[in-house]
Amino acid sequence: MTTSTQIILAATPTGAVSEANFAHSEITLPELADGEFLVSVKYVSIDPTIRGWIAYDTYLPKIPEGDVIRSLGAGEVIQTNNDAYPIGSRVTGMTNWQSRVIMTNAFRIPDGVTYEDALSVMGMTGLTAWYGMLEIGKPQAGETVVVSGAAGAVGSLAGQVAKIRGARVVGLAGTPEKCDWITNDLGFDACINYRAQSVPKALRETCPDGIDIYFDNVGGEILNDVLGQISDRARIVMCGAISGYDSADLPPGPANLVNVIPRRATLQGFIVLDHFDRAAESATEMAGWMAEGKLISKVDITDGLDNAPAALMALFTGGNTGKSLVRL
Amino acid sequence: MTTSTQIILAATPTGAVSEANFAHSEITLPELADGEFLVSVKYVSIDPTIRGWIAYDTYLPKIPEGDVIRSLGAGEVIQTNNDAYPIGSRVTGMTNWQSRVIMTNAFRIPDGVTYEDALSVMGMTGLTAWYGMLEIGKPQAGETVVVSGAAGAVGSLAGQVAKIRGARVVGLAGTPEKCDWITNDLGFDACINYRAQSVPKALRETCPDGIDIYFDNVGGEILNDVLGQISDRARIVMCGAISGYDSADLPPGPANLVNVIPRRATLQGFIVLDHFDRAAESATEMAGWMAEGKLISKVDITDGLDNAPAALMALFTGGNTGKSLVRL
Repeated sequence: MTTSTQIILAATPTGAVSEANFAHSEITLPELADGEFLVSVKYVSIDPTIRGWIAYDTYLPKIPEGDVIRSLGAGEVIQTNNDAYPIGSRVTGMTNWQSRVIMTNAFRIPDGVTYEDALSVMGMTGLTAWYGMLEIGKPQAGETVVVSGAAGAVGSLAGQVAKIRGARVVGLAGTPEKCDWITNDLGFDACINYRAQSVPKALRETCPDGIDIYFDNVGGEILNDVLGQISDRARIVMCGAISGYDSADLPPGPANLVNVIPRRATLQGFIVLDHFDRAAESATEMAGWMAEGKLISKVDITDGLDNAPAALMALFTGGNTGKSLVRL
Repeated sequence: MTTSTQIILAATPTGAVSEANFAHSEITLPELADGEFLVSVKYVSIDPTIRGWIAYDTYLPKIPEGDVIRSLGAGEVIQTNNDAYPIGSRVTGMTNWQSRVIMTNAFRIPDGVTYEDALSVMGMTGLTAWYGMLEIGKPQAGETVVVSGAAGAVGSLAGQVAKIRGARVVGLAGTPEKCDWITNDLGFDACINYRAQSVPKALRETCPDGIDIYFDNVGGEILNDVLGQISDRARIVMCGAISGYDSADLPPGPANLVNVIPRRATLQGFIVLDHFDRAAESATEMAGWMAEGKLISKVDITDGLDNAPAALMALFTGGNTGKSLVRL
């Protein structure tokens, strides 16, 4: 008899998320049916989008109370009734926050790729940065690109992709340590510490000719500040709005949105799940840039499934640098 | 000696516009230089964008105090030093708010086209509706399109263009008379009186499957209400934000903008001056639809150049139906 440890949604959050919203649960898994395989989960992925899934319907239905937390993850096949997934294969997919999961379909991790890379730069996080920056932002050499959440999983990669395409890149982050990492290690041209500086003033100083592309992970006031400073034909990549995810009420909208008309700007929202068909292309290109030393991927690892809720909460207080993973 | 009557900017407005912002002026025009021609202005065009030009730099520099009000207009060539514009030619161009103007370049109005059509459905107003709806909104048969300012110059045409392409079209306007005109004469499928109805509720009732395209002429609260009700891959055509033009401060932004991410929506601003190259194509198509009885163009005429400021102010209080022109 196989058991699995799960973190379930104990109570739907109404304001800020706390430990009380989650509970530890032990379940017994059924025997494998035809086509199924059992995965021993090694890592689960801690993503801001989970904050939406536990609270309301988004692009996916809300997670019901009592159900396991939906999540990407990676692990090793330890039992199988599916020839495409022999014992010992390493896979990524929707493992959810649990120690063992029965699956019928997953992505095989190629030899030579670590679990950590498979769940970050070469996974959905990397695809989000790659697709959003290259297919929506479309940076040209010499353009000025601003990235918020620049020390985060997606932002740190998105900014580096824009640098590779020859753009000037300015990041926003919330501590001096993050800003140092962004400029010294990632090679951004400048970093604004939004907690210590006046963002509108810092944007005027670092982007004197205006902002051509804004890769937005945070929404809220910073989005408004950027919209006050955009160039003609600016592209705003609407990737996330993490500043508002943990609030009971919707934060105010950006008054400077009116600037989109005289500046002929475009704001475009996207969801990475729509662009799975580009995953191999993104992973190949990202891996190539890493091999050439042009791209750095950082993971921020927390040990123990029971610490997954705390790792999720840390996303909303700026606690992580790079891609947050929980290792089982 | 040729004289011209002008309406000039007496004082830059800070809040709502009043007569005190304008003054009547008489000037003497110089002799015509080589290549110049003198136009006797017959109509000037009353457009919401003038409200921006008198207050601050937009896509064009602010009009300085003491200068004539910048404006499109139409008239007849009465003196000429330019063979391309013989006496008696009818032209449209930047005549400004004045009775006579020396020009070096203008559009010749084709025979058979009235001044009124040249300044509305077959001019920049028509191009704004045609380009914004067809090139940015891209309505498909069966899609649901919402148009604000639907009794206005651009909105009334934009909605009809979407109907011609087979969309369901819902308009918003501010009086029962306008709503009757929109549904009975223009053939929109429904009209919401935003002053008498709850807009979010009325949008849910008239657009039960969500809003695929929103052609926005007003901004403000209605934009927020629409963003709360968009479908997947919705397109928001950011044409104008007239609800905020007459305020001293920027109105609040739309809190529902966050919905753009899960709905994968796009907001795009545009300025019709960028799309002059499509003017002939738009005018030809619009004229064809009028000839087939598929498109109605209405002009709302005020007599006397001195009434131009009042006609401009009426745009912000919902005083006009269709395209506002001042006839000299």
